[in-house]
Amino acid sequence: MAGDGKIFISYNHVHKLCQRSAEVIKKFNPDLMVAIGGGGFIPARILRTFLKEPGAKNIPIQAIGLSLYEEYVSNATDPAEGVAKAEELGVEVVRTQWLDFNTLESHALNLIGKNILVVDEVDDTRTTLHYAISELQKDVKIQAERLGRGNEETKFFVFVLHNKDKPKRAQLPEDMMNEGRYYAAETVSDVWIAYPWEATDIDLQTEYAFKQGNI
Amino acid sequence: MAGDGKIFISYNHVHKLCQRSAEVIKKFNPDLMVAIGGGGFIPARILRTFLKEPGAKNIPIQAIGLSLYEEYVSNATDPAEGVAKAEELGVEVVRTQWLDFNTLESHALNLIGKNILVVDEVDDTRTTLHYAISELQKDVKIQAERLGRGNEETKFFVFVLHNKDKPKRAQLPEDMMNEGRYYAAETVSDVWIAYPWEATDIDLQTEYAFKQGNI
Repeated sequence: MAGDGKIFISYNHVHKLCQRSAEVIKKFNPDLMVAIGGGGFIPARILRTFLKEPGAKNIPIQAIGLSLYEEYVSNATDPAEGVAKAEELGVEVVRTQWLDFNTLESHALNLIGKNILVVDEVDDTRTTLHYAISELQKDVKIQAERLGRGNEETKFFVFVLHNKDKPKRAQLPEDMMNEGRYYAAETVSDVWIAYPWEATDIDLQTEYAFKQGNI
Repeated sequence: MAGDGKIFISYNHVHKLCQRSAEVIKKFNPDLMVAIGGGGFIPARILRTFLKEPGAKNIPIQAIGLSLYEEYVSNATDPAEGVAKAEELGVEVVRTQWLDFNTLESHALNLIGKNILVVDEVDDTRTTLHYAISELQKDVKIQAERLGRGNEETKFFVFVLHNKDKPKRAQLPEDMMNEGRYYAAETVSDVWIAYPWEATDIDLQTEYAFKQGNI
């Protein structure tokens, strides 16, 4: 039963993690949320409830889709490519969706000078988060140079439900870590986290989570 | 307590609604999911689990953001504009994010000839869903004409957790309704649906949902 080293998480536990974390995240005053899908969709939507200030509008959520492929180094048929890939930490982040700048700009909303909250479910090897932040920073730089607003400071904050305490394959910016703009609701050891949205039997999942105190 | 005419929904109930609905939706063989954010994010992510076939990849999710503003007719300072808006059903759908065609096309993925599943939490006045389907159909038409593929049939399927049994302000395409490409996991009367992601006390929300059988 609730064994084999997995951590079982209930939906209500996820909800409470977001609710508690919102108190920390609010101090950052986010202007915009970027949800990394699929895993970031659920925490982002819950978090929006708790970041809303009375009388104010909801914080807009932009979704991006990123998938991590780790297999291909060993599958590489071209040795040269195999080496090249290995230098890229042996993984590939594939975009399935990126920000919709047309719509953002039609609302006179861009990323320049904004406080941007990036949300995902888990920080495992940190590869996906590294990719997201690096690419968003590049986009901001391009936008800012185009508009002659290179002097405005854009800040990113990363929120994840869980951080796995393990060696990371990629890093997040030093100033982000030093200035407390990284927050994991819970830090766990390097175990399998069973999220409720992947459960084929949600009653059993909830029971296991309950027994582990993740309710 | 669990009174004042509201329907309280637990997360586990949402999970089960998606799980059951997946059996119906699978017959449509969706190639791509379009999640209408913020409400569609959670059902879309859960649904992805149950639409995945063993050995196959996850169905890609593209997120779009739509907000419904209903206030401005009475707020209109320009009477002419007030009339114009009223002719538009007295509501305005505002896009906060749209499809990222650049990334879609970089994966050689477009909408033409595809089965596209559109997901939202609730079908209330049908205004948002009408907007989403109409605009997506326009995009497909533009893409297809540009590529000389106007003869391929693109099909849309709408899935919502709840449909409110009430007069609708806008319609969905007749062939969609006639061919069973609209599915609401539950149909309810015109009452307030309290979704768990809006709950400030999730334990109480779950207790109310339990008493109403929505668990």
